[in-house]
Amino acid sequence: MRTPDQNAQLALLLEVAGTPKPGNVDRRRDLADLRFEHFLAGAVGARDGLELAAEGAAVGPAFERAVAGMAAQGGGNTQFGALLLLVPLVRAARDDLSQPHVEAVVEETTVADAAAFYRAFEHVDVFVDDPPEGLEPLDVRRGAEAVPALEERGLTLLDVMERSAPADDVAREWTTGFERSFAAAERIAEAPGPVPDRAAATFLSLLAERPDTLVVKRSGESVAADATARARELYEANALETAPERVEAFADDLVSRGVNPGTTADLVAAGLFVALERGAVEV
Amino acid sequence: MRTPDQNAQLALLLEVAGTPKPGNVDRRRDLADLRFEHFLAGAVGARDGLELAAEGAAVGPAFERAVAGMAAQGGGNTQFGALLLLVPLVRAARDDLSQPHVEAVVEETTVADAAAFYRAFEHVDVFVDDPPEGLEPLDVRRGAEAVPALEERGLTLLDVMERSAPADDVAREWTTGFERSFAAAERIAEAPGPVPDRAAATFLSLLAERPDTLVVKRSGESVAADATARARELYEANALETAPERVEAFADDLVSRGVNPGTTADLVAAGLFVALERGAVEV
Repeated sequence: MRTPDQNAQLALLLEVAGTPKPGNVDRRRDLADLRFEHFLAGAVGARDGLELAAEGAAVGPAFERAVAGMAAQGGGNTQFGALLLLVPLVRAARDDLSQPHVEAVVEETTVADAAAFYRAFEHVDVFVDDPPEGLEPLDVRRGAEAVPALEERGLTLLDVMERSAPADDVAREWTTGFERSFAAAERIAEAPGPVPDRAAATFLSLLAERPDTLVVKRSGESVAADATARARELYEANALETAPERVEAFADDLVSRGVNPGTTADLVAAGLFVALERGAVEV
Repeated sequence: MRTPDQNAQLALLLEVAGTPKPGNVDRRRDLADLRFEHFLAGAVGARDGLELAAEGAAVGPAFERAVAGMAAQGGGNTQFGALLLLVPLVRAARDDLSQPHVEAVVEETTVADAAAFYRAFEHVDVFVDDPPEGLEPLDVRRGAEAVPALEERGLTLLDVMERSAPADDVAREWTTGFERSFAAAERIAEAPGPVPDRAAATFLSLLAERPDTLVVKRSGESVAADATARARELYEANALETAPERVEAFADDLVSRGVNPGTTADLVAAGLFVALERGAVEV
């Protein structure tokens, strides 16, 4: 019987092992400067922060600690988004891993949690857009320097996520009761085969559903829409079963073009955690 | 800066990621009932026991805890031998990760450590031979039932390892100041490329040097000698650089024949730990 922090660490590892996960590092693919072993080391380092959350620590400080540990490897940002989903889920799992309870966990976040979230950006280089006009004081890239502006406005971590939700599908989870994370867990539970294969199938189904917001930010909307259209076509053709070479080719193409649907991978990690924690899958 | 228990967990993960590691589960290969994800879960579960060792707990109980956690996955014995090397190394790293200090750590083991080692066998199915004639009361497969016989004879864990050393190259490390573990660390430090590639190169060099004792036990001496002869030929030809497809073919052949040089993989994990802990490699 694994503890929630053990299951969260395992979810990070199973996520990166799942292949093919088009555009992402997976068991068969590395990106130019971001390799498989960086994700292994990221999962090792994240554990202490996840353990804090499992022990009942506040979400912000647990997240900051998890990110600081995750960042102690040479690949840069491996699992920032995944941890932003996992930490409240682990915190909820302490009592009850249900959508209403995770909603309660994020609703209880404070300005101090928001400040810890901002400090987390000082540990790692996360790809973010310029903030909307008028919100420059709250630019996450300012790190701890933005904390006075947060405090002045009395923004909790949930408030910060609500502002990010329109452009970021990790933040959006915070505002929808972790809808897609729980949906991913159900798909993982229902898919056939070993857990990493289920993770890959679920990745494709999620990418087919909505454009990846990291791809939108990095490569633009049309690239993101195109990746999702191709994922949908493969998903609807059940290509992982009927023509796996087409999904492999799609994966190689996205990797070679630097199109990285990392937010979709974050959702898979969250789904793996929920599925493991509920005993819906076994490893 | 990772703690020794974090580096040990990372060593377990990097070991299984290294490919090709002929005959073993690696980033590209699964065995029939033992898959990559079982090693990921094994590394997750082992962490608490490794942490005990890093905090200064006695070697036997820390090992038992690590094995109990490692065994909490569906693949069976993934990392028993690796943990039997890592636990004393982690315990030593708390003060000084040198060969003389690891020797001191194992010399300090007690009958209670031996008893914990025997109890560890109750958590997992480890492949062992029948004991020599007259040593049936000390058959490790008896688990805790053998503890009275241990106590009667006053055998420490080092004593038990000395008795196993002739037929088991993990136990042999305990009697040689972890000679090959430290040699592996040097080879890992000197090899080119990403750390998992260095792990694979070091695996081949170790297998080229001595027949794998797990293969001897499972498949017999001639199969083990043949695997080592083939490894030596590939190693001397620098095949990983000049003809990697030959090493891949060797790996596929061993996997298909069920020839599993798992002891050699255990030594690689130990070498990875020493190299990480000394900062000789970075991930």
